[in-house]
Amino acid sequence: MELDTIAAISTPMGEGAIAIVRLSGDDAIQIADKVYKGKQRLGEVESHTIHYGYIIDPQTGNKVEEVMVSVLRGPRTFTRENIIEINCHGGLVSVNRVLQLVLNEGARLAEPGEFTKRAFLNGRIDLSQAEGVIDLIRAKTDRAMNVALGQLDGRLSKKIKTLRQALLETVAHVEVNIDYPEYDAEEMTNQLLLEKAQFVYQEIEKLLETAAQGKILREGLATAIIGRPNVGKSSLLNSLVHENKAIVTDIPGTTRDVIEEYVNVRGVPLRLIDTAGIRETEDIVEKIGVERSRQALKAAQLILLVLNYSEELTKEDEALMEAIENMDAIIIVNKTDLEQKIDLERVKELAIDRSIVTTSLLRDEGVDELEEAIKELFFVAGIEGEDVTYVSNSRHIALLNQAKKSVQDAILAVENGMPVDMVQIDITRTWELLGEIIGDSVHESLIDQLFSQFCLGK
Amino acid sequence: MELDTIAAISTPMGEGAIAIVRLSGDDAIQIADKVYKGKQRLGEVESHTIHYGYIIDPQTGNKVEEVMVSVLRGPRTFTRENIIEINCHGGLVSVNRVLQLVLNEGARLAEPGEFTKRAFLNGRIDLSQAEGVIDLIRAKTDRAMNVALGQLDGRLSKKIKTLRQALLETVAHVEVNIDYPEYDAEEMTNQLLLEKAQFVYQEIEKLLETAAQGKILREGLATAIIGRPNVGKSSLLNSLVHENKAIVTDIPGTTRDVIEEYVNVRGVPLRLIDTAGIRETEDIVEKIGVERSRQALKAAQLILLVLNYSEELTKEDEALMEAIENMDAIIIVNKTDLEQKIDLERVKELAIDRSIVTTSLLRDEGVDELEEAIKELFFVAGIEGEDVTYVSNSRHIALLNQAKKSVQDAILAVENGMPVDMVQIDITRTWELLGEIIGDSVHESLIDQLFSQFCLGK
Repeated sequence: MELDTIAAISTPMGEGAIAIVRLSGDDAIQIADKVYKGKQRLGEVESHTIHYGYIIDPQTGNKVEEVMVSVLRGPRTFTRENIIEINCHGGLVSVNRVLQLVLNEGARLAEPGEFTKRAFLNGRIDLSQAEGVIDLIRAKTDRAMNVALGQLDGRLSKKIKTLRQALLETVAHVEVNIDYPEYDAEEMTNQLLLEKAQFVYQEIEKLLETAAQGKILREGLATAIIGRPNVGKSSLLNSLVHENKAIVTDIPGTTRDVIEEYVNVRGVPLRLIDTAGIRETEDIVEKIGVERSRQALKAAQLILLVLNYSEELTKEDEALMEAIENMDAIIIVNKTDLEQKIDLERVKELAIDRSIVTTSLLRDEGVDELEEAIKELFFVAGIEGEDVTYVSNSRHIALLNQAKKSVQDAILAVENGMPVDMVQIDITRTWELLGEIIGDSVHESLIDQLFSQFCLGK
Repeated sequence: MELDTIAAISTPMGEGAIAIVRLSGDDAIQIADKVYKGKQRLGEVESHTIHYGYIIDPQTGNKVEEVMVSVLRGPRTFTRENIIEINCHGGLVSVNRVLQLVLNEGARLAEPGEFTKRAFLNGRIDLSQAEGVIDLIRAKTDRAMNVALGQLDGRLSKKIKTLRQALLETVAHVEVNIDYPEYDAEEMTNQLLLEKAQFVYQEIEKLLETAAQGKILREGLATAIIGRPNVGKSSLLNSLVHENKAIVTDIPGTTRDVIEEYVNVRGVPLRLIDTAGIRETEDIVEKIGVERSRQALKAAQLILLVLNYSEELTKEDEALMEAIENMDAIIIVNKTDLEQKIDLERVKELAIDRSIVTTSLLRDEGVDELEEAIKELFFVAGIEGEDVTYVSNSRHIALLNQAKKSVQDAILAVENGMPVDMVQIDITRTWELLGEIIGDSVHESLIDQLFSQFCLGK
């Protein structure tokens, strides 16, 4: 495949100690040599070595940056192509200027994810591994990272390949049966088909069992803190954020109001909804009320409903309790530092079988219990442990569901005594669907779309 | 000097393609080897080479990240110590976990700027060069970057050393004169003292002439957009931000409301004041008025005063014109797309000798003229060009001013026929003050304070 040389800034935007301009492609080293001045020309050095020098503007001869340049010759690289990494002092202006110079000298600005896409196109990784790379970057907790790393490492790919191999063998067997009908007893073929199809079906089911948890690990659990004004929603928010390591994600390309807050509560990544709304009202008497709470509910997967220990239950409280029927929720009865006025029996009645935690956020009491309740609600017994191959990606989940349906059709067809060539269609379809997960026979536009989710420079 | 091994994340926080954990110190390579698994042990490889492998949690043996590790043995490194750079996929969680592992294995978390401080302590760069590193990272424009790069490159250091050498020779000469009074004619000594002191004085003056501009290049020109409600302040802000590359700086450690906006207008870095105030009122009828304008004035170095072409001058307009007396300002008469009602002659009268630009921001007319006016106001004729050694740092400027005073005292002393040993005191003081710029004889607490301004990992 003939691919041009691409370049991008591969470190996050912002002031930092190190910023990297990365090039990949046949001409990466020649292009870098046009703007680099050091002891040796980069074209002459060994692969996988690092060189001190300056980036020079070839137009003026002026120094632009003091740099360390890494030279990596393909195919022993991330993309299997020649790679140059220009390691600059971390200023925004200087790294942009270095990028501009290499673009002037013939590199093309890389699209988001284009480096990883090349690793895929050049056969170093398959599609699910490439998706693991994105997930690893976006991982919000250690567990999410392990899932992504497993995927990047090819764990899911290996599983998928095993299943496809089983299906392929079945198809081959059926082919033999069709070509030489006299050679094999039809019954034996049916028996084999059934066994293999059932094996694949069960394995797909096992994978899908991990999906709900995998998806939450990957994307975070959308969590809404709701309650009447002045029950302590902002105290709860602050407590969660301060007790745990908050991960604030600033969506690139925008400035304000799009900051998402994640907190990692005992391994459960909570994505906090509408924190801006809660924060805005933090200093003045808290205004956010029932109407706003109802809105936050829509997008939520987990509800933290705060009630006031020192007041009787109000109509609004009961309305909110009703509104969260059938949702995962934890009831927090806050302000135990004040005199009890709430009827806890009534709360229990309304809570049905949901956890109730009493807290005094003022005195930092009850937060441990709350975190434990969150963890218990999330980590369903059984599907934990290092050896589980998680499916976490929506695209994979959809394909697995389709494959499950398709292999189920095959099983039904055999059981209903359908002709083997009919069964073969379902088996082949299953094989194809599983193939799409690892990027076999995937449409180009899908590939473009997938890689465009990456950040620039990856 | 016995220094322990330090480690930090050296790339900006955020999702990116690459994140780097950097270690520096005698044990950097051994520590990295405890968590790294690849083809070879890092302790056995050549310096300045790059190695593919995995970071492993030594407790569990589990893979934590897929990495490229750079091995750089001192003294040919940034700090002159052994340096390891662990190049991770750019996720926040994974890079934090890698950092945690090297800390567990005996590295200490680096303080902000500690890598650069080591470069200074180990004698690779002097203090003004180290300060150039910060400035390079923070540079908002190409010009600012050139100033910083010049400083990092030792341009200012060289100048300072030349001046100190001249002073040292003078002192030596005076010493000879004191020790052997019969040996040298007193007059000759005085003549020489005067010449050298005057030379140093003039050179310091030349440096200080660049200071105002250098400081603005470095820190940005604090710019306030003021005017009555609804004259087009937010349009002007948007126009400046969209026409030019806005650099939004997110101060680390905080989330909202502290975002500074920089725009690079033809090489002049404008630091826009109170943009939040202007933006807040963007969608509703613009409320920000005269009182708020007055407050913005306090911190401003450049005023952009917007008037309404389609309305007569009001008392508020005149009050604002008066309020900016003696300040650098440009008067923008906006809304030329509407019928003229303003008395431009009166505006000219009030503007005294300030530039007046008429614009229709709605139609994008007059913005070029405005930008040209900003550039002309800022780039004072004479002190431009590649060869100028800029002084941009407040610390340096303060020391140069003191040194100037001190060498002036020496000149006066000679002219007033004071004894040479009195003169010598002033000359020595000048020599010391200049030395502080490059970090000779600087107090340790000052050094700590200086390096603490750096970002983490540098």
